[in-house]
Amino acid sequence: MQQVGFIGLGIMGKPMAMNLLHAGYPLHVYTRQEKTEQLFREAGATIYASPKELASHVDIIITIVPATTDVEDILLGKNGIIHTAKPGTIVIDMSTISAASTKRMAERLKQKHIDMLDAPVSGGEKGAIDGSLSIMVGGDETVLKTVQPVFNVLGKRVVHIGNSGAGQTAKACNQIIIAETIIAISEAILLAKAAGVDPAKVREALLGGYAASRVLEVHGQRILDHDYQPGFKASLHRKDLHLAIEQAHMLKLDLPAATHAMHCLDRLVLKGHGELDSAAMHLLTENPSE
Amino acid sequence: MQQVGFIGLGIMGKPMAMNLLHAGYPLHVYTRQEKTEQLFREAGATIYASPKELASHVDIIITIVPATTDVEDILLGKNGIIHTAKPGTIVIDMSTISAASTKRMAERLKQKHIDMLDAPVSGGEKGAIDGSLSIMVGGDETVLKTVQPVFNVLGKRVVHIGNSGAGQTAKACNQIIIAETIIAISEAILLAKAAGVDPAKVREALLGGYAASRVLEVHGQRILDHDYQPGFKASLHRKDLHLAIEQAHMLKLDLPAATHAMHCLDRLVLKGHGELDSAAMHLLTENPSE
Repeated sequence: MQQVGFIGLGIMGKPMAMNLLHAGYPLHVYTRQEKTEQLFREAGATIYASPKELASHVDIIITIVPATTDVEDILLGKNGIIHTAKPGTIVIDMSTISAASTKRMAERLKQKHIDMLDAPVSGGEKGAIDGSLSIMVGGDETVLKTVQPVFNVLGKRVVHIGNSGAGQTAKACNQIIIAETIIAISEAILLAKAAGVDPAKVREALLGGYAASRVLEVHGQRILDHDYQPGFKASLHRKDLHLAIEQAHMLKLDLPAATHAMHCLDRLVLKGHGELDSAAMHLLTENPSE
Repeated sequence: MQQVGFIGLGIMGKPMAMNLLHAGYPLHVYTRQEKTEQLFREAGATIYASPKELASHVDIIITIVPATTDVEDILLGKNGIIHTAKPGTIVIDMSTISAASTKRMAERLKQKHIDMLDAPVSGGEKGAIDGSLSIMVGGDETVLKTVQPVFNVLGKRVVHIGNSGAGQTAKACNQIIIAETIIAISEAILLAKAAGVDPAKVREALLGGYAASRVLEVHGQRILDHDYQPGFKASLHRKDLHLAIEQAHMLKLDLPAATHAMHCLDRLVLKGHGELDSAAMHLLTENPSE
């Protein structure tokens, strides 16, 4: 069986890594959290003091961390995997980061005969726990086939989108659509409420027609319940929208509705609501002057 | 069996009326189109020269016409049903029109002991043909129960939203959400294309996650195919967004994303694309300077 390294044992990474352990994969981890280290040691994983130390022991290295610079550190930094990983090692970066940086990192690693896939996910913590994530993969398709069994443990729908960076582009599309759809639902709910109409009835009726969406189902319910426990934190959604708009600008594109969504997420985070679910954008819809 | 009058035998009304005939309802129609008149005469309907002449012969009058003023003419005009309809007659207006005007008309009719439901639909021509419309009903719930069998012929999901006008408010919410979601999908597809990524793959992957929606499914495919045959005409969608924003302004609400969607539909229609499906908003996303 392939030896799997896992770096980034956060809200998403922890259940994903546990699912791999339970599926029988020998797991090798690096984490700066002592509690997490203990949890994985007890579960049977091997612990390392740095990505560099971990890398020579594995066939596959999965990373899922917050920012582009985190991935750069883990892969190319002083203690990065590039210094020790065997030729033929496959890096699977499941973080949501810059598509352009992803391409550059993949090229750097390729010079050392290390393959890299970008494989960001959709489906949230629940999808990570259930192993039902949707995985958007960029990079070489034959490399993808080599690690397909690992993806099958983590997710339900695995789509090869295209070359290196294509997975990140798909994820940017995903985050744009979700943010704009939340705003759409939010405005509709505000209109219903202001007109004295029960928004729960409206949601119920609309789920039967062309306005139906997972966002209307899930985030719509959150807005109705005023329950903004994440879910997916506004601060992370904001980061993702900034990545998408940055990519759009590099491509000289104008995406007015996505830019509006980014500004809403900016305002929400600046008001101190970054830890709430991004459905909390409804707070701004309700109080535009705030 | 209830005698049913039907006024407004257009793209939506014609198949809906035919479904009622096939379900065994004695049908009474008024239309200004000679060809449509002949079609319904041959199918077994009784033909009248005006709404006023029709009204005294029926228990239920269904209207589904383009504009608020059309409904006002049919119900309250010189040749309107108000002059002849029996007490206890039920008017079901399935048009998409102003919620405020709906309330006023319902009050006027009530003085003559005529009940009115607003019951706009979602699901398009296909839903009208298949009898699978989603129907959003405003008005008295006991009146709704009286006509439930008629709704069961026309639609699959019938939701009583609230008092008079509530159905129209729900429809406004529906149209806002669809328009904004089309824009979201449109921007995402543009980003994918510009980044050199196959947007069909992106759509496929995203349908498995939180970005999934009927709009991504249906309108997304239209955008990928550059196939803007309606579907639902941009000119009608524009009219509906104007109704929604007008209602929002009356309620002193700011709905920036819906307002942006309205402006997009305005520009699309002004460019002469009003007969295309509203997914053609993608043409503006592609060429924002146009």
